[in-house]
Amino acid sequence: MISLSRSEIEALIDLPQAAIRIEEAYRAASLGHVNLPPVGHITFPQHNADCHIKYGHITGKPTFVIKIATGFPNNRDKGLQTGNGLVLVMSAENGQVEAVLHDEMVLTDIRTGLGGAIASRLLARKDSKRVLIVGSGQQARRQIEAHVALLTNTAAFEVWGRNAEQADKLVARLAPVCDIARAIDLEKAVRQADIIVTATGSTVPLIMSDWVNEGTHITAVGADAPGKQELDIALVRRADVLAVDLFAQCLDHGEVSHAAKEGLIAAQDLQEIGGLLSASTQARANAMQITIADLTGIAAQDIAMANSVLTAWSDKAT
Amino acid sequence: MISLSRSEIEALIDLPQAAIRIEEAYRAASLGHVNLPPVGHITFPQHNADCHIKYGHITGKPTFVIKIATGFPNNRDKGLQTGNGLVLVMSAENGQVEAVLHDEMVLTDIRTGLGGAIASRLLARKDSKRVLIVGSGQQARRQIEAHVALLTNTAAFEVWGRNAEQADKLVARLAPVCDIARAIDLEKAVRQADIIVTATGSTVPLIMSDWVNEGTHITAVGADAPGKQELDIALVRRADVLAVDLFAQCLDHGEVSHAAKEGLIAAQDLQEIGGLLSASTQARANAMQITIADLTGIAAQDIAMANSVLTAWSDKAT
Repeated sequence: MISLSRSEIEALIDLPQAAIRIEEAYRAASLGHVNLPPVGHITFPQHNADCHIKYGHITGKPTFVIKIATGFPNNRDKGLQTGNGLVLVMSAENGQVEAVLHDEMVLTDIRTGLGGAIASRLLARKDSKRVLIVGSGQQARRQIEAHVALLTNTAAFEVWGRNAEQADKLVARLAPVCDIARAIDLEKAVRQADIIVTATGSTVPLIMSDWVNEGTHITAVGADAPGKQELDIALVRRADVLAVDLFAQCLDHGEVSHAAKEGLIAAQDLQEIGGLLSASTQARANAMQITIADLTGIAAQDIAMANSVLTAWSDKAT
Repeated sequence: MISLSRSEIEALIDLPQAAIRIEEAYRAASLGHVNLPPVGHITFPQHNADCHIKYGHITGKPTFVIKIATGFPNNRDKGLQTGNGLVLVMSAENGQVEAVLHDEMVLTDIRTGLGGAIASRLLARKDSKRVLIVGSGQQARRQIEAHVALLTNTAAFEVWGRNAEQADKLVARLAPVCDIARAIDLEKAVRQADIIVTATGSTVPLIMSDWVNEGTHITAVGADAPGKQELDIALVRRADVLAVDLFAQCLDHGEVSHAAKEGLIAAQDLQEIGGLLSASTQARANAMQITIADLTGIAAQDIAMANSVLTAWSDKAT
């Protein structure tokens, strides 16, 4: 039985390798080759907190994965991280526990970043140079790292955050790995960007349709629960390609759910990332299209990350 | 973070102490003080196997518990145990993982044994001397150990099993801790018993109503899934006290479900163990009553066992 700490897990992750696994998982999910039972959930109302249990099995794989993720927002006041948890890798052949990955949410953070970069790589113009990251938290960091790793042609990153001090810190942290600066004016930054990644906890639209040039790609990862929203619904309606990670989930509480509720878009306007990755044609038809990827996070990504870590562990051990 | 192996866990368990915790948990469950979300479930049809995720939180307790239990019946052919898994103890204050108990199902086995002995102690005549255990597997063993620990007045155990060789092995194993022998004739053994514990995987009734004397107590733990049955429905109907661990679960797939489906008993004929433990009156009204406890196993027991182990661990550490 393997037991790995957060730092051991982080040291084993190779972003491009993990991205290959996550792409496979997106494809498998879209083909219906992933058994994903309903997510388990327990709440702790006195702390405004909860725990989610996501689990699933990719058909034919020797292991299945159970992810336990807690969210305790009041931890912030105690100086503790708000998200925590672990990932269990179990044998789908004999039921034994193969590994306990004490990732404390880092696998979720990284797989969400990689999901965003995979979507951007799939949908953005190949000559995209300027990436705008909206948000300055943990996930903004993971998006930048993943985009640096997967979109090697991009030249410059800008970070916009409500909290300028936090955005400056993020810029300072990532300056060693990419050309990065803080954006002062969000509208101006949107107008100049080829790729926009939104990774905030916003509940009101931050990016207006008027600001967005033709040819822009937008990856939106902030809306992962009901009530959250980052994009103007007019922008969602205007998009030529609307990609989602999971139809049902995105229509329920993803970024596209707001436009869908207003009747501006319908289920048939959406395409799954996994389907686009499997398709024989390019996801983006031309350089003028506006493309949007709405990612809510799926358990298939967690399975892929866990397997990626274990493969790296066993490669290192041998 | 605490991580304990199966052998470390077994060494920390004190049956009478754990029984106190389990009784508390039964009471809390019957009072509605346990938040028990629906059980998670994933199947592996090619192996006729599955995994259950049971989790819950007793109101006001600083921790909550997640139990992962796998069942791979084909493991028998590979020389591996069929049940496996682990128990996670998580902080209900900040969401951190407090302990990983790699119990490989032993906590479930022991809590099921203790549940049976708690029910027998609650419902059997105080002068009960002869205990008949029907079944000779892992759970028969745990039932005997728990009855020895909690019902200190009982004098003699008999074991009946379809597989005489396996029953002889169980008798040999437990001979050092109690007066125990193999029963040759099940009907005769039933007629002589004060307490009968059924712990088999039977799908047909093993114990006939005609065989059972007035004043007998029966604890039935085998029927934990649809289709399983150990007692004649006439016996269930005849019982003066019908105790269950959880109303909904026992009516769905417990021992009493068969009589309920035939219309011989109804929900109002049942009493929960937790309610009986909390009541100011004796669960058994007189020495002539036939009492039956139908136990399907509840997550509150798992919570109690995990907390009992952690308390013992921390007592030992200080």
